[in-house]
Amino acid sequence: MKCTRSHNSSWLGFGSYLRDMHTAHSYTDLVQFTQSVFMAMGCSEVDAQTATHSLLIADLRGVDSHGLARLMGYVRLWDVGRINTNPAISIIHETPSTAVVDGDSGLGLVVAPYAMRIAIQKAAAVGTGWVAVQNSNHFGIAGSHAMMALDSDMIGMAMTNASALVAPTFSTERLLGTNPIAVAIPAGEEPPFVADFATTTAANGKLEINQRLNKPVPGGWVQDAVGQSTTDAHALKSGGALLPLGSDREHSSHKGYMLGSIVDIFSGVLSGANFGPWVPPFPAYVPMPEHCPGKGIGHFFGAMRIDAFRPASAFKQQMDQWIRRFRSAKTTAESDRVLIPGDPERDMAAIRRKEGIHLPESVVADLTSLAQRFDISWP
Amino acid sequence: MKCTRSHNSSWLGFGSYLRDMHTAHSYTDLVQFTQSVFMAMGCSEVDAQTATHSLLIADLRGVDSHGLARLMGYVRLWDVGRINTNPAISIIHETPSTAVVDGDSGLGLVVAPYAMRIAIQKAAAVGTGWVAVQNSNHFGIAGSHAMMALDSDMIGMAMTNASALVAPTFSTERLLGTNPIAVAIPAGEEPPFVADFATTTAANGKLEINQRLNKPVPGGWVQDAVGQSTTDAHALKSGGALLPLGSDREHSSHKGYMLGSIVDIFSGVLSGANFGPWVPPFPAYVPMPEHCPGKGIGHFFGAMRIDAFRPASAFKQQMDQWIRRFRSAKTTAESDRVLIPGDPERDMAAIRRKEGIHLPESVVADLTSLAQRFDISWP
Repeated sequence: MKCTRSHNSSWLGFGSYLRDMHTAHSYTDLVQFTQSVFMAMGCSEVDAQTATHSLLIADLRGVDSHGLARLMGYVRLWDVGRINTNPAISIIHETPSTAVVDGDSGLGLVVAPYAMRIAIQKAAAVGTGWVAVQNSNHFGIAGSHAMMALDSDMIGMAMTNASALVAPTFSTERLLGTNPIAVAIPAGEEPPFVADFATTTAANGKLEINQRLNKPVPGGWVQDAVGQSTTDAHALKSGGALLPLGSDREHSSHKGYMLGSIVDIFSGVLSGANFGPWVPPFPAYVPMPEHCPGKGIGHFFGAMRIDAFRPASAFKQQMDQWIRRFRSAKTTAESDRVLIPGDPERDMAAIRRKEGIHLPESVVADLTSLAQRFDISWP
Repeated sequence: MKCTRSHNSSWLGFGSYLRDMHTAHSYTDLVQFTQSVFMAMGCSEVDAQTATHSLLIADLRGVDSHGLARLMGYVRLWDVGRINTNPAISIIHETPSTAVVDGDSGLGLVVAPYAMRIAIQKAAAVGTGWVAVQNSNHFGIAGSHAMMALDSDMIGMAMTNASALVAPTFSTERLLGTNPIAVAIPAGEEPPFVADFATTTAANGKLEINQRLNKPVPGGWVQDAVGQSTTDAHALKSGGALLPLGSDREHSSHKGYMLGSIVDIFSGVLSGANFGPWVPPFPAYVPMPEHCPGKGIGHFFGAMRIDAFRPASAFKQQMDQWIRRFRSAKTTAESDRVLIPGDPERDMAAIRRKEGIHLPESVVADLTSLAQRFDISWP
C-alpha cells in the first residue's frame, strides 16, 4: 500500500516504465555483475567498486535512465577509445578552498567521487571546498556525488555539463545539455534533503520512455526544428530540442536557460573542459564536435562544512523543523503529502533493496551480451 | 530602433508597465533624492550612498518592482521599528572561507554589500568566500550584490529568502518566498554574464502589474486556495499562491520548489535567520509570523576567484567564445536574437541613464509625500 501511494505521489514519473519490465534482480547480484564488467574493461578493483556504486545508486533510487541502462554506452565509449579505464587522475591547480582536477578521460563514475573527496577535504580544512573537473566523462547521477558530503556534516553539491540537447530561450539550436544540479543537505532525525534535477522541463529519460512507447509528450517539453512547442516525442531526431525548465518565455524558460548556462560555465569554462555545443556526446556512434575548445566533459563539485557557519547540531535541529513543517503542509487533490526533495528516491531505494531491481528487456539484452563478451555470468 | 527591438525581445516583460507612466526623472536627481531620504531616516552618509546604489540599480536595470517603488515600504518598516538605520553589523562566526554576519536589523540594501565584501576578501585570501547573513531585511535585487565580484575577476553569487508567497508542489500552503538567485560571471571583451531570477514561474512584480491593470494572468503563474491553476491575478488575496518555476508537476514545478528550498535553507537555516513560513513580511502592516525560529531575513553570498581555478585571461577569453556562440544562434520567430543573461537589463540601464527613469504616478505620489515628510525637495 505504502509503495503504491509513494509511486502515485512521486515526481519520478517512471510508472509507465515499470509496467514494461522483466523479473527483478537483487541489488547485490547486480553489484557483483557490474563490478566484473568494469574490471573486464581494465578498471582496478577499487575503481570498479567506485564506478559500480556510482552507477547502481541510480537504479536503486529509481533514476532508471542513468543506471544499468547506460552500462553498454560506457563500454562502447571505451571501445572507441574515449574512456580510459586506467586514468592518472590529478590535481592540476589548487588553492586552500579550490582545485581543478584532470580526469585523464576516466569514467566520470570514478573521476567524480575522486573530485568530491577533494572538495570534502578542503572543506574540512578551510570551511568549504570547490572542485572543477576537466577531461571527464558521464558521471551518472549528480546526487550520488553530492550525498558523499552528508556523513561529514557537510552540504554537498554536484553538477555536470552534457552534450547539447537543449535550446536556450529564442534559439532553434541546441546549445546546452540537460545539465543537472544536485544539492544534499544533512538533517538531524529526519533523512537528508537531496535535490537532484536536470535544468530542463523534462528529463531526457522521461522523453525516451515516450519514444519507446510511441506516445506523444505534453506540450512544453520539446520544440521542433523552428522552435515551436510540439508533442512529438521524436522531435529531437528532426532538429528539435528539449526545452529549459519553464518551457516557454511566458513561463520563464529563460530561468531554466540561465540555470543550465551556469552549470555549463562552472563545469566547462571554469575547469577547462568543453562547453556549450562542444561537449562530447554520450553515444559512441555520434561523432565528436569539431574544434573543441577544451578537454572532455566538465563537472563542478562543492562541499560546505555546516559548522563553518553554525554548530551542526543547531542546524540539523532546524532542518528537522524545516522538513516537518513542509511535510505536514495541507495538500492539493493531486497528492496526500508534500514531498521533501529526496523522499521519492529514498522510498524507491528502500523498495528496490528489498524487492530487487526490475530491468526492461532491452537493458537485460544489453547486459547479457556484455556477460557473453566478457565471459561473466549474468545473475 | 535598437531600443524597441531590445524591449520586444527582452524577458523583462515590463512593456505594459512602461506605457502607464509619468515623465522621466534623471538618474542623478533620483540618487540625490533617495540619499536624502535614507539620511533623514538616520543612515550615515556612507550607508545612505550604499543603500541608494543598491536600490536604484533596480530602476536602472528595469526591475521596477524592486527599486523606488519600494522606498515607501522601507520607510514604513523603519516607522514600525523593524529597520535599524544605525546597525552594528558584525561577523559572528568565521573560518578562512566562510562567515556568518548579523545584520542587526539593518537595511538589507546596506547589510548585503557589507557581507558581499567579506565574501570577496575571503576569496582573495583562500580562493572562495561564502557568507550567510541573519537578522537582515529586504536587500533589493540580488544581481546588484553578485555583480560586486566582477571587478575583482571573481564570480559573484547572491540569494535571499523572503516572506512566503509560493506553494511547494502538491501544497496549498504558501511556504517559500520568491527566493531569487543571482550569478555574475566576468567575460573579456564581452559584457559579463549576469543571471538574476526569482525561483518562481512569474516574478511577483509581473503579477502586481496585472493586478493594477485588472488583467488576468497566464495559467501556470498562480494557484487558488485549493491548489488549482487560475488566471485570477488577485488569487493570492483569497488563499492562493505563486507557483514555483515549472508551474505544474507535468512541467517539473518540483524543480522550482527545490531551487526555492535550497535558497531558503542556505539563506535562512545556515545563517540562523528565519526560514519557510516564518520569514518576516515586507509590508509593515502585515503582522510578524508567530514563534519565529530565527532572526530577520536571511541572505547567502559567494565569491569565487577565477584564478583559483585557471588564469583569468584564459577563462575570460573562453567566456567571450561562450557568449558569442550563444548570441549568434539561429532564432525562433519570437525574437531576432538569443539573449545572454544580463543583456536586457544592461540595455535598459543604458537607455535609462540617458533618457531618465519613468516612474508610475503611484510611485511618484509616494515619493513626493516622503519629500514633504522629510522636508526634501522632489526633483
